[in-house]
Parts: sequence; structure tokens; C-alpha cells
Amino acid sequence: MSDRKLAVVLLSGGLDSCVTAAVAGQDYDLALFHGNYGQRTVRRELQAFRELAVFFRCRHLLEANLDYLGAIGGSSLTDASLAIPQTDTESEELPSTYVPFRNTILIAAVVAWAEVIGASAVFIGANIIDGPDYPDCRPDYFNAYNRLIELGTRPGTHIRIHTPLIHLDKADIIRLGLKLQVPLELTWSCYRNEDRACGCCPSCRIRLKGFAEVGIKDPILYDEENL
Amino acid sequence: MSDRKLAVVLLSGGLDSCVTAAVAGQDYDLALFHGNYGQRTVRRELQAFRELAVFFRCRHLLEANLDYLGAIGGSSLTDASLAIPQTDTESEELPSTYVPFRNTILIAAVVAWAEVIGASAVFIGANIIDGPDYPDCRPDYFNAYNRLIELGTRPGTHIRIHTPLIHLDKADIIRLGLKLQVPLELTWSCYRNEDRACGCCPSCRIRLKGFAEVGIKDPILYDEENL
Repeated sequence: MSDRKLAVVLLSGGLDSCVTAAVAGQDYDLALFHGNYGQRTVRRELQAFRELAVFFRCRHLLEANLDYLGAIGGSSLTDASLAIPQTDTESEELPSTYVPFRNTILIAAVVAWAEVIGASAVFIGANIIDGPDYPDCRPDYFNAYNRLIELGTRPGTHIRIHTPLIHLDKADIIRLGLKLQVPLELTWSCYRNEDRACGCCPSCRIRLKGFAEVGIKDPILYDEENL
Repeated sequence: MSDRKLAVVLLSGGLDSCVTAAVAGQDYDLALFHGNYGQRTVRRELQAFRELAVFFRCRHLLEANLDYLGAIGGSSLTDASLAIPQTDTESEELPSTYVPFRNTILIAAVVAWAEVIGASAVFIGANIIDGPDYPDCRPDYFNAYNRLIELGTRPGTHIRIHTPLIHLDKADIIRLGLKLQVPLELTWSCYRNEDRACGCCPSCRIRLKGFAEVGIKDPILYDEENL
């Protein structure tokens, strides 16, 4: 048994959450949480999640079914009748990939699990530089959530949300991942496909731009037609 | 079409949430949300929820499956291997019926739905007088949650949590229900049984004490042996 403290990482299987897990693993034993909220590429995400769990030698795993987010709707990620945009809009509007209150729902599940298993930290790979400007990814939001956790958990429980990537851009995140020897080839970011990444959805574009800035080739497979 | 504003009510099918729905219905059109989180008596709760939805003539209904709370565990309400206590403990400890971070999870789902359907209020029947002293039922907690909603929802969205029963005791809640002509006979509070209420779990005891104080008979069926 390790005497290190335990942290729960919200691990989608994407680049950011994978690097976040590696950062958390420097100081904590890991418990890994995946939320299935009806997102289109969940099968491929789960494959990445499971392969990463093996890589991190993690035995505390929870794959939670939150597909009521699909019933709630309101997002192109969970509603097959809405198109995933080619790129994020430049307007003031939130992109259609926004899932209402998603991070609050995911973090609430993660905090409940952390309380039960005695973890003292929750890690999430949110960042505000290179992602869409979602309201539930900003530092003020996480500060407010930490206050809610302090008031809403069992007395004597001290769980804090950590967002180590919040001020990093995608190239910095990739550099940090390389430094921590993260298996970037196991991660998956595409919003659209499950076999080869599409290369043109907002998530693929941000990822490819990051690798281009670092000057290395992204190790995952892309649909060559779109590159 | 009504031009009244829309509110989502977290309706378990119990006495408190039913009276809360009636209070909300004075000022708002109602959308009713039930969360199945693997609680033992969910079948009976859902019956109450559906009968109350008919009573309130409500067409916005969402029954969400949150049974990952059962996988997370940590509560006698969701883990059949833990016994429901006969009465709440008098100690400083939280009772075993406490479900870690339950209200945060339920409210997060309700707020997401409110955002999608354009509701401006969320109602929950929490109260601090006659219930167990759960951390996620106190006014400070709801104030912190309102701050999180303000920061974490789509810009231009204004959703507030309302807790009209928070300072009422069970007898006051029953009196308010009678005044608003709420069908108390359709509500269900028991933690243990699904046919006749057990009459001896903490939830039944608080309910029966409330009816005794008001001086009327509780209209639901009880297991006579335990009364």
C-alpha cells in the first residue's frame, strides 16, 4: 500500500486530461473517472480511457453512465440531429458543442466518489487559452465550485479541485506531456469520428495546431483527406 | 401558451418536494424532474412522481437515470448491504442515509435542463429544521450554488435556486400543503418499503410526528404493526 494521498482525475481520454493525470500522478495515487454523457465518440473515448488506465497502472476506475445529459439535450455533442461545426464560430455565441452545465455535473460525480474513497483532490484538464470560451472552464468558476465543495461535503472532508493546465496553451500542454513521458499516441480528441480522427472539427484543429507549434507529428491516425 | 415564467422542480414524490411544487406553481409554469440514483424505493417514488405530474397537469417531465450514485456508494439509501437505521443517530456523525454530494448532482442535472428549456428558477424542498443535518441542505450551501450557476451557465442565463421550505418544520410544511390543497395522499416518504410505509425509518418518523402535531391523520397507508 502506498502512503501517498489519493486524487480523482476526470479522464475523458483526451490530450488535456491525460497530461493532467500525469501531473496529478507526480504527487498522488490516482483514481480515474470517465463520464459517458451520450457524446458521439464515447466508444473511442472509453478505449483511450482504458488504455490510459493500464498505462498509469491504476486500479481505482469508475466509468459512470450520465446519459441523461443526452435526454436534456442542447448540444451538438450529444444530439445527433445537430451538426458538429467545422470550426468554432468567431462570434460572441457559444459554439454548438457546448453542453449545458456539463462540468458541474461531471465534477459533482467526481467529488461524490472522492468523498467515498477518501481522495483529497480532484483534477480536471480545463484550460482557457486554446479551447472554446465555455463558462464552466474559467478560474472564477472553479473557485466558486471549491466553495460549494467545502460547504456541501461531509464535515471533516477536504477536497479541492486542481486545474494544472488552466493557463497553458495547447503547445505548452503537449510539451508538458512530452516532458512527463505521457503516451500521447493513446489519447483521443476528435468530436466526430471513432476510427481515424477527422482532422477538421474544432477539437482536431486545436490539437493539430498545437503539434505544429511544437514541431512534431501528432502520433494518432487522421483521415488523410481532411489534412 | 402561458406567458408565465417556467420553473423546474426537483420532485422526489415526497411530502416536501410536493408542497414545494405547489408553492412554485403559484408563480410559475412547472417542469418536473425526478432523479433515480439507485435509492431503494425508487419504484414507489416514481409512482408518486407520475401521479403528482398528472395532478399538476404538467407536460414537461424528465425522469433521469443517475444510478452511478449507486456505483459510487457510501450510503444506506443506495447500498443494499447497509441497513437503514431505525431512527437518526443522536451523535455528531451523519446518518448512514446521507448520500455523498447528492444534492449537488441532482441540482446540476436540474440546472442543465433549466438552461436548455429556458426556465429561470429551480425549486428544491430542502429544509433544515426537521430533517437530518445534511451539509447539502443549508442556506449557505444554496447561496454558494447560486454563485456557481451564475458563473457556470451560458451568458445571459439567469437561473436561481429557490428553497421555500428551508426554515419550516414538518408540521408547517403539512399546514402549507393543506392550504395549497396539495394531494398529500399521493406523496411517499418511506426509505424502506414500497407497498405500505414502514412507519419506523427516520423519514416515516419525521412525517408521522408532523401529522400528529397538526392533529390530522396521515392519508397514506402504513404497516400497522410498526405504528
